[in-house]
Amino acid sequence: MEMITSKDNTRVKNAKKLYKKKNRTNSYLIEGQHLYEEALKSGADFKQIFVTEKFADTPDATLISDDVMKFLSDAETPQGIIAEVILEAATLKPEQLNKLLILENVQDPGNVGTMIRTADAAGFDGVILTAGSADIYSPKVLRTMQGSHLHLPVFQENDAQALYQRLKTQGTTVIATTLSETSVDYRTVSQPEKFALIMGNEGAGITPETSVTADILAHINMPGQAESLNVAVAAGIMIFSLTD
Amino acid sequence: MEMITSKDNTRVKNAKKLYKKKNRTNSYLIEGQHLYEEALKSGADFKQIFVTEKFADTPDATLISDDVMKFLSDAETPQGIIAEVILEAATLKPEQLNKLLILENVQDPGNVGTMIRTADAAGFDGVILTAGSADIYSPKVLRTMQGSHLHLPVFQENDAQALYQRLKTQGTTVIATTLSETSVDYRTVSQPEKFALIMGNEGAGITPETSVTADILAHINMPGQAESLNVAVAAGIMIFSLTD
Repeated sequence: MEMITSKDNTRVKNAKKLYKKKNRTNSYLIEGQHLYEEALKSGADFKQIFVTEKFADTPDATLISDDVMKFLSDAETPQGIIAEVILEAATLKPEQLNKLLILENVQDPGNVGTMIRTADAAGFDGVILTAGSADIYSPKVLRTMQGSHLHLPVFQENDAQALYQRLKTQGTTVIATTLSETSVDYRTVSQPEKFALIMGNEGAGITPETSVTADILAHINMPGQAESLNVAVAAGIMIFSLTD
Repeated sequence: MEMITSKDNTRVKNAKKLYKKKNRTNSYLIEGQHLYEEALKSGADFKQIFVTEKFADTPDATLISDDVMKFLSDAETPQGIIAEVILEAATLKPEQLNKLLILENVQDPGNVGTMIRTADAAGFDGVILTAGSADIYSPKVLRTMQGSHLHLPVFQENDAQALYQRLKTQGTTVIATTLSETSVDYRTVSQPEKFALIMGNEGAGITPETSVTADILAHINMPGQAESLNVAVAAGIMIFSLTD
C-alpha cells in the first residue's frame, strides 16, 4: 500500500477544505473510529477514507503519514482515521414526521450537537436547523453529535416561518419553548401525536414571529436564582417531557 | 488614579497564578462584568479588582493598561474587569441541606459549570464535587456556572463514600443516576423531602461502590438510537424531575 507523505497532496488539501461550509457541495468529513463505525453501520457512502498505519486494515482506505494526518485532522490528538462521507438527501419531508426538534438560530456548535444527540436518544424522527444555526457538518458539531445525524434526518431550512405554516397545515402541533412566564408550564403540555418542538437562540430565545405562530408556548419554571438554563439542558428537559 | 502598565508587576503576576488550583489558598479570580456584579450582589469579599479605563468608575479598583489586562485575562476578548474574590467557607454542612446535587468524578469543566447552574435554577440547596471532578474555580467552570456558586454553597469532598454514609445517617435519600436499565425509571421516583442526586463520570458513570451505597438507582429510558445522553443534559432531566 502506498502512503501519502506530503501535505501538498491534492486529495489531502481538497479534503481539508471540507471543514468550511462554503467549500462543501455534497460531502463532509468525519473523524475518529467511533464516527467511522457509526457511518459504516448506517450504510453511509464513503468518497474516500484516510488512515494512518494504525487503521491500515480499513477497507478501501488511503494510507497517509502521521504528519499528513496531523495536518488534515481537526483534533488535538488525531486518532488516525478520517472519512469523507457523501451527503444524502432525506427521502421524507419534515411534515411527514411525527416528532420533530427545531433549532431556531442556535449558534453554539456544542449546543447544536448535544441537542441533536438528545433528540436521537429520545427517539425523535428528525431535526431541523433554521438559517442562523451552527453549521451541522462542522467538526465541533459532528464531535458532540456523536453520529446522531446518521440515525435521524437533519434538515436545513432558510424560511422558518414558512416551515411552521407548512407543518401546521399538515396537522403538526408547533410547541415553542420560551423564557417568558406568561406561557404555560411545560409539565401541563400533553404529548400531541404529531408535534414540532422549537428551541430558540442562546441569548434571545425564539423570534417574536415564532411566539405568534406557535400553537403552544411553554416555559420551564425555575424556582431558584439562576436567570436561565443552558439551551441544551432546557431542550433535554422539554424533549424528555414529550417522550413516552 | 495610577495605572499598572507592566506585566512584571508583582500583584498582577501573583493574581494570574490563581487560575491554577495548586496556587490558590483562599481566593480565586472572576472575570467580566456579569460575574463581578453577581459577586457584588451576593456580598462577596473582594481582595482586589483590576480594571481597564472602561471600568475606571468601579469602587476600590486598580487601573491596569489594556496590555496588562490581556496578559492577566483568560478570555479571548477581555471585557476589562477581573476581581479576586475571597473564598468563604459554607456555614452549613451538606447533611443539613434538603436538596443536593453531587458530581462524582465529572471531569469536563463545561459539564460541571452547566450542572451547577441547572441546580441553581431548580432551587437546589447545594452542590458537592467529589475528588476527581473538575476544578470549580477554574476559568472554564466559572464561565459556564454564570455566578451560580454565589447563589448556593459548593462543597468539595475527598471521601465520597463517607459522605454518602453521613447523608444517609442524617435522613437524606441518596439517588444515583445510572446508565443501567436494571435500575428504576426516573419518572417513578417521587421527590423525597431530603435527597441527594448523584451524577457520575462522563464515560464510566457512577462508581461500583456508589451503586451499592445509593438508596435508589434510576435511569433515563432512551427509546432512540443514541447510546447515551450528555451528562449535563441527563442532570437537567433528573434535577427538574425532582423539582416542584
